[in-house]
Amino acid sequence: MAPPLRCHEETNGSNNTKSNGVTTNNNLLLNAEEFRRQGNLVVDLIADYYAGIGDIPVHPTSVTPGFLLRQLPAEAPAARPGPEAFTDALRDIRDVILPGMTHWQSPRHMAHFPASSSTVGALGEALAAGINAVPFTWAASPAATELEMVVVDWLGAALRLPEPLLFRGGGGGTFVGTTCEAILCALVAARERKLAAVGGDRAGDLVVYCSDQTHFALAKAARIAGVRRLRALPTRRADAFALSPRAVRDAVRDDVAAGLVPLFLCATVGTTATGAVDPVGDLCAAVKKEEVWVHVDAAYAGSALVCPEFRQGVEMEEGVDSFSMNAHKWLLANTDCCAMWVRDPRHLTDALGTDHDVILKDAAAEGHHVVDYKDWTLTLTRRFRALKMWLVLRCYGVEGLRDHVRAHVSMAAMFETMVRADTRFEVVAERRFALVCFRLRPPPILLVPHSNGFSNGGGHHHHQEEQEEVMMANLLNRRLLEEINATTSGPYLSSATVAGVYMLRCAIGSTLTTERHVVEAWKVVQDRAAFLLRRQI
Amino acid sequence: MAPPLRCHEETNGSNNTKSNGVTTNNNLLLNAEEFRRQGNLVVDLIADYYAGIGDIPVHPTSVTPGFLLRQLPAEAPAARPGPEAFTDALRDIRDVILPGMTHWQSPRHMAHFPASSSTVGALGEALAAGINAVPFTWAASPAATELEMVVVDWLGAALRLPEPLLFRGGGGGTFVGTTCEAILCALVAARERKLAAVGGDRAGDLVVYCSDQTHFALAKAARIAGVRRLRALPTRRADAFALSPRAVRDAVRDDVAAGLVPLFLCATVGTTATGAVDPVGDLCAAVKKEEVWVHVDAAYAGSALVCPEFRQGVEMEEGVDSFSMNAHKWLLANTDCCAMWVRDPRHLTDALGTDHDVILKDAAAEGHHVVDYKDWTLTLTRRFRALKMWLVLRCYGVEGLRDHVRAHVSMAAMFETMVRADTRFEVVAERRFALVCFRLRPPPILLVPHSNGFSNGGGHHHHQEEQEEVMMANLLNRRLLEEINATTSGPYLSSATVAGVYMLRCAIGSTLTTERHVVEAWKVVQDRAAFLLRRQI
Repeated sequence: MAPPLRCHEETNGSNNTKSNGVTTNNNLLLNAEEFRRQGNLVVDLIADYYAGIGDIPVHPTSVTPGFLLRQLPAEAPAARPGPEAFTDALRDIRDVILPGMTHWQSPRHMAHFPASSSTVGALGEALAAGINAVPFTWAASPAATELEMVVVDWLGAALRLPEPLLFRGGGGGTFVGTTCEAILCALVAARERKLAAVGGDRAGDLVVYCSDQTHFALAKAARIAGVRRLRALPTRRADAFALSPRAVRDAVRDDVAAGLVPLFLCATVGTTATGAVDPVGDLCAAVKKEEVWVHVDAAYAGSALVCPEFRQGVEMEEGVDSFSMNAHKWLLANTDCCAMWVRDPRHLTDALGTDHDVILKDAAAEGHHVVDYKDWTLTLTRRFRALKMWLVLRCYGVEGLRDHVRAHVSMAAMFETMVRADTRFEVVAERRFALVCFRLRPPPILLVPHSNGFSNGGGHHHHQEEQEEVMMANLLNRRLLEEINATTSGPYLSSATVAGVYMLRCAIGSTLTTERHVVEAWKVVQDRAAFLLRRQI
Repeated sequence: MAPPLRCHEETNGSNNTKSNGVTTNNNLLLNAEEFRRQGNLVVDLIADYYAGIGDIPVHPTSVTPGFLLRQLPAEAPAARPGPEAFTDALRDIRDVILPGMTHWQSPRHMAHFPASSSTVGALGEALAAGINAVPFTWAASPAATELEMVVVDWLGAALRLPEPLLFRGGGGGTFVGTTCEAILCALVAARERKLAAVGGDRAGDLVVYCSDQTHFALAKAARIAGVRRLRALPTRRADAFALSPRAVRDAVRDDVAAGLVPLFLCATVGTTATGAVDPVGDLCAAVKKEEVWVHVDAAYAGSALVCPEFRQGVEMEEGVDSFSMNAHKWLLANTDCCAMWVRDPRHLTDALGTDHDVILKDAAAEGHHVVDYKDWTLTLTRRFRALKMWLVLRCYGVEGLRDHVRAHVSMAAMFETMVRADTRFEVVAERRFALVCFRLRPPPILLVPHSNGFSNGGGHHHHQEEQEEVMMANLLNRRLLEEINATTSGPYLSSATVAGVYMLRCAIGSTLTTERHVVEAWKVVQDRAAFLLRRQI
């Protein structure tokens, strides 16, 4: 039998391949009954996928680069295939493509950060795709624009954002695809505001501040925006890897003294490596004098702010200029759905707006103050993301989202407890949300490589020993991650290196994850650790 | 009866609102049977929408800004609603939200550019949302990355792009959301390449070239990237609004003489206003000496390149550095789906890549040359857009796409013929694809406002008369567009102003549009014109 993916050109000449001449469309392309037929097949495929996803490996452990390239024909099918093409394609998705995927919805996906799905989130995206409107201006789809305005306020209020960031408080928000886009929008708005104040010739003097734990989205945004000076200030384990307001204040002072122009500070609520939380209020105070734009990147932990207990210690400062979080990470709104709020939308529209585009003007909106979202972000074309978020909030309620977040945090706490109960392991960073950073301690045999009589000697040798100990521990833990991820029934974990220490990250957040999966995941970690430690001895 | 959108907090306490404690998720959030139940409702809603869309107004003619804001509650529902919440929400979509939408899939949507849907395109998006993988690196979903590599080559080959832009020719491509993103990626790659050659301190000297017909996406990208010098060179009706290679050569020469650094040229295949085509080959030759990055923006007309006859006169130059087109506009891949190709992907990854992110590294890819798409574009998080494009190509075949495009071009030609047969109207710009730009000629009574004895006099009065004639014709045509768009059974058209002339745009491209809709649209245009002209007299 030929590989399934190569079969699609064999059928032809069926009753719908005949074009009705060139002046009318084939009426099956957007036919209601054809949609019903194909749609039911798709619903079944996805439902079956969810039903079975707990029983298949979370990622393909046996594929190597090129595995799918080799199975696919070099050219798209030329002739119009018959009506069975769709069924054939779905079979290939099931039998060829899905087995080569990393299953982010697997209950054992605990790598990176979650992309927590819901039936309502997936179907919200399907509805938006089916309706397929392009709401770039109010007129281009009035209900889509107004639903977005309402839902972004709903979400901001559910997270207890400062009122000035919401439409009701004089600010406003929108949905973009990703945090990378949100940070870039905020940075460009800040840049244009600052250059208007200090002069366009100072572009080379602008400085952006963050910590060494800030997501690379900021450095990327700065590079895209042509802002070359970025201060990634060091954090310390003793501060739980939070950005120090004193360090920021000192850096800003030094830069001003050197004739530079402080521009932008990115504070993080829930860093990617360890889930650390920067002290937003104190950071705002540290840069207030220099009118630095403060953006809060809560990509991951923003979702947790639906729960009062996880807002403890997270300062929601009114002085924040912009705030973003990924509802597609942990709030059941399938990818992509990044919510962004700004205190003064005029700064966004001044920087990103286009008013010369007469093509897009519409009489209905004339004389009214309407929001034209094309002027808020990077793109003109945009999807109707608000529909999905509206459905999620409406069908699950804020209390439902809280249950969802709390369940994951509780499971992460359980995982942490198991790690702490095993003396071979240690928890490397304070856990606040549903991310546990841990590692295997270096076993004693690895700790005495330099028992050569000099170990009581000078600091130099002591330092060297420490360095070598860290390196060996890192290698051991790297090997541990590979072992865990090579199992077909274990969890899929990822790693981070913070302050030179390599750690494993267990990020609980898949919608389907239950206590059983967490217990099983820990057993696999222990089993693989025991295997490695036996080999070391 | 209360307005439907306010009803969603009344239900509570049903059998699934009870959380199973905080340590397990509510098992309905991603439950297979719940997905099947809800999915079938969604499929029916969309199918019914397609079945009825020809019989409802293409856009809401009676809504005013704030209409939906006033109907929605100020807060998201707090308590978790019952299982009927989803059905209630779908009813509100049908009864409240959809009637406030502009229906881009209506057969009478002829405004802007099309967002041509297909059942397969919509369901491809639904599948990607259901699977909800985040393929930012090869390891993060191997099959998704490799399918994207294959499909982008399939599409490029179907458009007969120059081989060096395809993976098979040493280049490569990817899918992003929009042309705005594609141009920004290309511009930043070009900027980093050029600054590496001329020195980072020359950022203020970089110059971007385009025509006065180039989409504002370029000016926006330049602003975001901090490139302040943009030459929008004038076009002429006599050149069919194409960018003149001579004008570009002169501008580049002058800029070099002034000590500036030519950076980037954006050529357009199918401008937004009139569908004009810039002479790509001659433009490449004009800037070759200065090593200017040439990007081809074929957002709209790129789709037409599947047909050999529409490649006539479109120069597919091997020297092009990057090329983008929106498959979501006219190639049945629902929003969003912009394909972008580059001749040398290293320029993209040098500018946009991040290699310090140890969290994303994966042992499986080590030692292999794999494509990590996060390094190609602006964003880390990305959707599995390739699945949709693969389904479209596989289920319709290149011949099916050709039928689709040809049908629309043929209908546009028919519309053009009808315009030309009515002496009250004129076609204002040459039609190449499926966009007809036309206007009502100013009636004779408007042409003699200055019959005051001086009309045979000096050029000044003659010029003034011409200006006033144009202004009055513009006002008349603006009024005509308002009249057309105010009808509930007519088409939805948009406008453009080119060389001072206001014109109506009829962009055929909705999948459901047939000859009947085009004939009816023209009748509405004639009827509204007659009404206006009667009033003028």
